[in-house]
Amino acid sequence: MTMNDNTYYVSYFVDELYQNGLEDVVISPGSRSTPLAMLFADHPHLNDWLHFDERSAAFFALGIAKAKKKPVALVCTSGTAAANYFPAIVEAYYSRVPLIVLTADRPHELRDNGAPQAIDQVKMYGDYVKHFHEMAIPEANDSLLKYSRRQASRAYTLANSSNKGVVQFNFPFRDPLIPDLQLDDLWGRHHEPFLNHSGGKETVSNNEAEAILNSINKYNRGLIVCGELSSESEVEAVLKLAREWNTPVLADVLSQLRQFNDDDDELVISTYDALLKHDDFKEQYKPDFIIRFGSMPVSKPYFLWLMNHEPDLHIVVDEQSAYREPANIRTHLVYSEVNHLVEGLLAQGEYKSDQDWTNQWINLDSETTAMLRELTKHDLTEGSVISVLSEFLPHGHTVFVGSSMPIRDMDTFFLKKRNRVNVNANRGANGIDGVVSSAFGMSAAGEEVTLVIGDLSFLHDYTSLLLGIKNHLKIRIIVINNNGGGIFSFLPQYQNDQHFEKLFGTPFNPPIKHMVESLGVNYHSVNYNEELAGLIKQPIEQIEIIEVKTNRDENFEWHQQIKQHVRKILDAHKDES
Amino acid sequence: MTMNDNTYYVSYFVDELYQNGLEDVVISPGSRSTPLAMLFADHPHLNDWLHFDERSAAFFALGIAKAKKKPVALVCTSGTAAANYFPAIVEAYYSRVPLIVLTADRPHELRDNGAPQAIDQVKMYGDYVKHFHEMAIPEANDSLLKYSRRQASRAYTLANSSNKGVVQFNFPFRDPLIPDLQLDDLWGRHHEPFLNHSGGKETVSNNEAEAILNSINKYNRGLIVCGELSSESEVEAVLKLAREWNTPVLADVLSQLRQFNDDDDELVISTYDALLKHDDFKEQYKPDFIIRFGSMPVSKPYFLWLMNHEPDLHIVVDEQSAYREPANIRTHLVYSEVNHLVEGLLAQGEYKSDQDWTNQWINLDSETTAMLRELTKHDLTEGSVISVLSEFLPHGHTVFVGSSMPIRDMDTFFLKKRNRVNVNANRGANGIDGVVSSAFGMSAAGEEVTLVIGDLSFLHDYTSLLLGIKNHLKIRIIVINNNGGGIFSFLPQYQNDQHFEKLFGTPFNPPIKHMVESLGVNYHSVNYNEELAGLIKQPIEQIEIIEVKTNRDENFEWHQQIKQHVRKILDAHKDES
Repeated sequence: MTMNDNTYYVSYFVDELYQNGLEDVVISPGSRSTPLAMLFADHPHLNDWLHFDERSAAFFALGIAKAKKKPVALVCTSGTAAANYFPAIVEAYYSRVPLIVLTADRPHELRDNGAPQAIDQVKMYGDYVKHFHEMAIPEANDSLLKYSRRQASRAYTLANSSNKGVVQFNFPFRDPLIPDLQLDDLWGRHHEPFLNHSGGKETVSNNEAEAILNSINKYNRGLIVCGELSSESEVEAVLKLAREWNTPVLADVLSQLRQFNDDDDELVISTYDALLKHDDFKEQYKPDFIIRFGSMPVSKPYFLWLMNHEPDLHIVVDEQSAYREPANIRTHLVYSEVNHLVEGLLAQGEYKSDQDWTNQWINLDSETTAMLRELTKHDLTEGSVISVLSEFLPHGHTVFVGSSMPIRDMDTFFLKKRNRVNVNANRGANGIDGVVSSAFGMSAAGEEVTLVIGDLSFLHDYTSLLLGIKNHLKIRIIVINNNGGGIFSFLPQYQNDQHFEKLFGTPFNPPIKHMVESLGVNYHSVNYNEELAGLIKQPIEQIEIIEVKTNRDENFEWHQQIKQHVRKILDAHKDES
Repeated sequence: MTMNDNTYYVSYFVDELYQNGLEDVVISPGSRSTPLAMLFADHPHLNDWLHFDERSAAFFALGIAKAKKKPVALVCTSGTAAANYFPAIVEAYYSRVPLIVLTADRPHELRDNGAPQAIDQVKMYGDYVKHFHEMAIPEANDSLLKYSRRQASRAYTLANSSNKGVVQFNFPFRDPLIPDLQLDDLWGRHHEPFLNHSGGKETVSNNEAEAILNSINKYNRGLIVCGELSSESEVEAVLKLAREWNTPVLADVLSQLRQFNDDDDELVISTYDALLKHDDFKEQYKPDFIIRFGSMPVSKPYFLWLMNHEPDLHIVVDEQSAYREPANIRTHLVYSEVNHLVEGLLAQGEYKSDQDWTNQWINLDSETTAMLRELTKHDLTEGSVISVLSEFLPHGHTVFVGSSMPIRDMDTFFLKKRNRVNVNANRGANGIDGVVSSAFGMSAAGEEVTLVIGDLSFLHDYTSLLLGIKNHLKIRIIVINNNGGGIFSFLPQYQNDQHFEKLFGTPFNPPIKHMVESLGVNYHSVNYNEELAGLIKQPIEQIEIIEVKTNRDENFEWHQQIKQHVRKILDAHKDES
């Protein structure tokens, strides 16, 4: 083993990732990972980011990968360091985000013998990675250098192929760990990837598209439903379909349809969550068919409606051969890229919606939108925070949304707007962990990011502020501080006095202002919608926290009031449909 | 499914854990886990601890389990919550700490279908748990209640059996999730465990003990080496063996031999780490045989010595049939409880050590101890912090030690003392993660705890201070703030200017004082050994942080000086041996 064995072997791997398109690597400090860390840092064209907490580091990588829609590499040392990646790997698995996890390991002779900081890293993430490879002990001969290069190309391609996800490559390193960075032929040897790829996308045939269209054409009261989509061209395809079919599209807040919709299309319905809390509406507006694009929408009322008011025809479109149909109803699964399917359907013929049906949805959505806007104009509430964002966020901005209450409030109150604002969240597993880190990742990718997050989720990932400071990132974080788990007030647990506050309310009384200022981070507290509006219109120059203190009980009551207002709108339309 | 199905089924499980000896459960908030959380909280005799971050919660449980030497239960909701347990589970696996992980899950009909917060939790920790069981959907009939009770008894016993470790029980829950706590027959139904157990310990036969003694009796220059032991009776057994054999025992700081040694026994050698940095010493003092108890010592010089100066006979005693021999040398593995083996060896006959050999070790240790004590009397350094602890910590106190530099400094400077001070650390995987939480766990178990930790490790687990505050715990935390990864200055990486400070030094400039005070936690900064001594003699009444600012470069230089002082001692004894 010479110094050059590790040096060349790893430099081939690192440079090949770059040749394949890698731009970013997130490194956590450690000794065993020295060859990877130093060669990544030494590469002339890669961005290296550093953080001491591997859990945050992985969520940060996930954020970059989501924003750039391409793989990001992670480097950690041996031991529990690698175990800390697990939550973000689980999230990446379910949200189909490409990550290349490079875990340094002791060589085989130092494993399984009680040596310090040596854990079994082989397949340690189980089924949550789509590929695992145990690398050979580095040697700088032709065969192994070619192998190293090929494996890097594999790593990138596998992570990024249509079924995007996480790959783990485990690297055993012997001493000496320090690479020789003085070698003059380390970089610039290759100028194209070792492997090129074409194809691999799932599509439907013309015959299949025709059959789908025929099944839809038995009906004329249908809905397009749209969950999280992965690209702007998909948004345009779904909008095009809605227009051609003159059919309402229930647009989840993560679909981007509400914003990436330059003509402010009436067909885009964004208030269905509020409408579907009413039984009579659910009965009257039951569609004959639903065709869904993207993942399952956030709205729980939609989910319950679907489950209990099964449409005659339920089509779920998925770009990979997976299964995302939690309502457990009879379903036609269509495995195809969105654009390809939409083009196929439109090419096969026409579909005509019942004009009354479409108009009624448009009218109810329009009135409910106006009501929600009016209601959130006055007092500062958890809902009005979202309304303010919806109204005042500048064009091109990104909103990252925390799990639990914030994403649900976003879905209810972030209505159609003309400014193109990108809305993102970790909706793979919906955890409250790693949210600040993920938002920082989007910022690192060059987005102008406002994060909306609850207090518990903020605390869970608070130390990632140090990641932001260290890497000179900027972000605006709105912390909705209701001192605990606000969402539980909406569940039956709320009715149980005995242990509610302890187990579900879980107030930790976080002194957000002091915690934030202790790190030298800019802090504001707001009491009025106008204050908040004034702040969010400013460009983001640094890390900045805006705390909105709310009350869980009041918030619950306020949501009940909204329900009454929707009731009135529905009553006024009682005789239609 | 009625409310009573979940209620009775889970109450049988919870109460059976109590009947088996469970005292503590650590709960993280969530909805799906409601039956477990509420019934644990409702149980009349269990301590329930709460924390929002499952990673910390699991390390906290680990700390309690280490202190009480019995299983602790963990409860979390479905999703990435469970993935956050992974680092502590890995640590528990390698350090053989019993944990009962109870993960709530969606019922089968809501899995693998894109439902929110539903991840595949079946065997998600892979080989790091010694047992996994997927519980049946709860029903309150005789068969399933008996099954629930039996499984709880199994869970406790499996975690706690001689090969201690982690078990996972995954609980699918259907609505309604809220148990009926008004039922008057919930508790008090049983008064003894469903399963009782005897046996299961590994032992040697008389013939085997005789053979071992005979192999030792071929030599008279031997060493007993002692790593981390798991009980006081083991400490006494090893001391007894050392005395009967008149043989030096190299006592790792985690062996407790240095302190639990009322007669201040000369045979207990605590300075071998400093001595073994010298090549001539390693040659001259090579033993003919080594018998080791407990895990591999912390000392890296000892490890290198063992590897390169293989004794004729190397015996490793392990209470379970495992393999803890990282030096990769010819070894006799003895699978036996320590006490049983010691009694067996002593019963089989005598062993006589060369008196000169023993005396030389005693003399060198005594002089090196005096030198180290003298050297650390003046300036406040990373080493002197440990000397002060060694000198002034009160009887009965517990020191918890962070990984990386602190544990190594403890091993070098925490020398023999008359006060019985318990020394603990997470040495399963030696991570810098979860250390504060683990120390809080020991405090929750009733220990008077001082934690010594580096700045990166402190930051990694900083938010666990909120766990401590929430649960009204007290602790004293000494943060050795050298602004980054101090240990790397002792590795060859230090010689590389190009990326050292960025990748290994990793200064995050943490404003410890402000961070700590922002939470209302008591803070001190000390500049002199006397100040530190004054503080650590006080009883611990709350959470209290003492920051010691040091300099990585100075610390490295200072360690070089110590080496020179040992050199002088060795030179003075050159002609012996």
